[in-house]
Amino acid sequence: MAVYTHLGAEELAELIAHYNVGDLVSAKGIAEGVSNSNWLIETTGPDGAGARFILTMYERRIELDDLPYFLGLLDHLSAMGCPVPRTIHDRSGAAFRMERDKAVALIEFLPGVSPTQPTAAQIRNLGEVLARMHLASKDFALTRANTMGFIDNYAVLQACGEHGLAAIHPDLPAILAPARNAAALNLDALPIAQIHADLFPDNVLMLGREVTGLIDFYFACTGPMALDLAVTHAAWCFDANNAYRAELGSALVAGYESVRTLTPDERELLPAIAQGAALRFVASRAEDWLDTPDDALVTKKDPMQFAQRWEFYRKSGSQLFS
Amino acid sequence: MAVYTHLGAEELAELIAHYNVGDLVSAKGIAEGVSNSNWLIETTGPDGAGARFILTMYERRIELDDLPYFLGLLDHLSAMGCPVPRTIHDRSGAAFRMERDKAVALIEFLPGVSPTQPTAAQIRNLGEVLARMHLASKDFALTRANTMGFIDNYAVLQACGEHGLAAIHPDLPAILAPARNAAALNLDALPIAQIHADLFPDNVLMLGREVTGLIDFYFACTGPMALDLAVTHAAWCFDANNAYRAELGSALVAGYESVRTLTPDERELLPAIAQGAALRFVASRAEDWLDTPDDALVTKKDPMQFAQRWEFYRKSGSQLFS
Repeated sequence: MAVYTHLGAEELAELIAHYNVGDLVSAKGIAEGVSNSNWLIETTGPDGAGARFILTMYERRIELDDLPYFLGLLDHLSAMGCPVPRTIHDRSGAAFRMERDKAVALIEFLPGVSPTQPTAAQIRNLGEVLARMHLASKDFALTRANTMGFIDNYAVLQACGEHGLAAIHPDLPAILAPARNAAALNLDALPIAQIHADLFPDNVLMLGREVTGLIDFYFACTGPMALDLAVTHAAWCFDANNAYRAELGSALVAGYESVRTLTPDERELLPAIAQGAALRFVASRAEDWLDTPDDALVTKKDPMQFAQRWEFYRKSGSQLFS
Repeated sequence: MAVYTHLGAEELAELIAHYNVGDLVSAKGIAEGVSNSNWLIETTGPDGAGARFILTMYERRIELDDLPYFLGLLDHLSAMGCPVPRTIHDRSGAAFRMERDKAVALIEFLPGVSPTQPTAAQIRNLGEVLARMHLASKDFALTRANTMGFIDNYAVLQACGEHGLAAIHPDLPAILAPARNAAALNLDALPIAQIHADLFPDNVLMLGREVTGLIDFYFACTGPMALDLAVTHAAWCFDANNAYRAELGSALVAGYESVRTLTPDERELLPAIAQGAALRFVASRAEDWLDTPDDALVTKKDPMQFAQRWEFYRKSGSQLFS
């Protein structure tokens, strides 16, 4: 959660005036995004009927060169009828502007809340929407390299060191020991599309059983569709005690396949991809955990959660996607 | 800025169902309030036309016994036509509910943004609204002791110590040296009302030159009206370089007096009250400054800002309110 930059009311009003969205009515810094500042903006709307937007200021980690891909993908998917927020372009047609040497973008506000106790019906719809997004993305003109390469995960964990991992949790080194021997996974033969690559519950808005918004596309890339499904599986299909919820896993795959059938290759590799995805979140969280001071006012994400999911996929993954 | 507690979508929906406001449509944690968690909530509204609210969870510092005063005062002032958010009562009529052993209240959402470069016209309106609020509060049934006593300010600064103050800024001990000899200020003879007592720009919403909302009444108390005017003066009438802006100070007092004339006693004591108010913010900020780790992800408020304002009131205050 974060608002890293204070933008005054006058500065915000001036910024908003570059867009055909009416006058500024309200602006609240919101506690979303780890590398951006975000405001929920209300304006009088282009027609005076009122409108709401998310204003995002890109603070770090985002490469400016990637913004046309991220923001263009939102526009493309939205135009194709996917529930993603479109980018509001300014009066000159630009998708983002520079403010205080940082890029800012105005993005459509979508209704919905992020479920924390999802039902099978919700997860089924999520699978459908994910597959629709993959199909809709195929004629998008831009590409972005897959930043979720699995090769580096073990190197990141090695850099944390045995001592570092044990400091996070005494059991962590033993749980991860088999990762050392995991074969490098070659996904080159799998069908690709534009993928979200980070579809955690925080990044999904729902009303009732319907997905109303996929948001936060800042890990999106051109990559294997099966990887997106595996990340979503790892992120959603476990309960608060980290036990696998089989009915959710089945609903996700069934929903996905009701729109797009997995290839035999994808189906065969999914258990290994799910392990790779889980290990990736162990690695990034372990790195963050050791980098974050204990007294910092941020909630550290526990690497153990995905270490246990990784272990689950390693032991039981072969039965999950058959 | 803060959202200290994570409330899941299902938990929020259940909470909202206790109010006659329709169904939950959206919930965003917002970066406001230092001792509360706040969400900007959207619902379908009691009539299906949509409605917005602020949901506040009281995390600390707030005494539960004070909530009927704070929330009742909002209702009273709102009913009297003052631009303050009313409390939404639940279906049983309660102004607040308990959730996870913490009190939560649903509060009207008001439009407007907080100016950072206020104009004289805006400040004049702020003075008018402040005086209207004081008059409207007079028949409010509850009272709350004034927590802005000036007697303790110097004790707080002494507890920071010469070394602590110098660590904040080398000039701070010298600037504050005359505070030692400041006579205790007796405000008992001044006319009282319910006062906001913390009317900083963050706590004022405006559209154009009109105040649309006074918010965050959690320092409100029964106290001298002149104290509220002095706090507002100290908080608003200096520029980004901390230079006094005479036209704003005049506009504030003129706006106030267009609604309620200051008594001769108030006028005479205002320079001393302004010093007391400024010193109070020096003391609380110095205390916070020394208590906050350097690497904590919070913006520490610089005690020097109000030390300089205190010095300004000490040297020039007698000409300001004459």
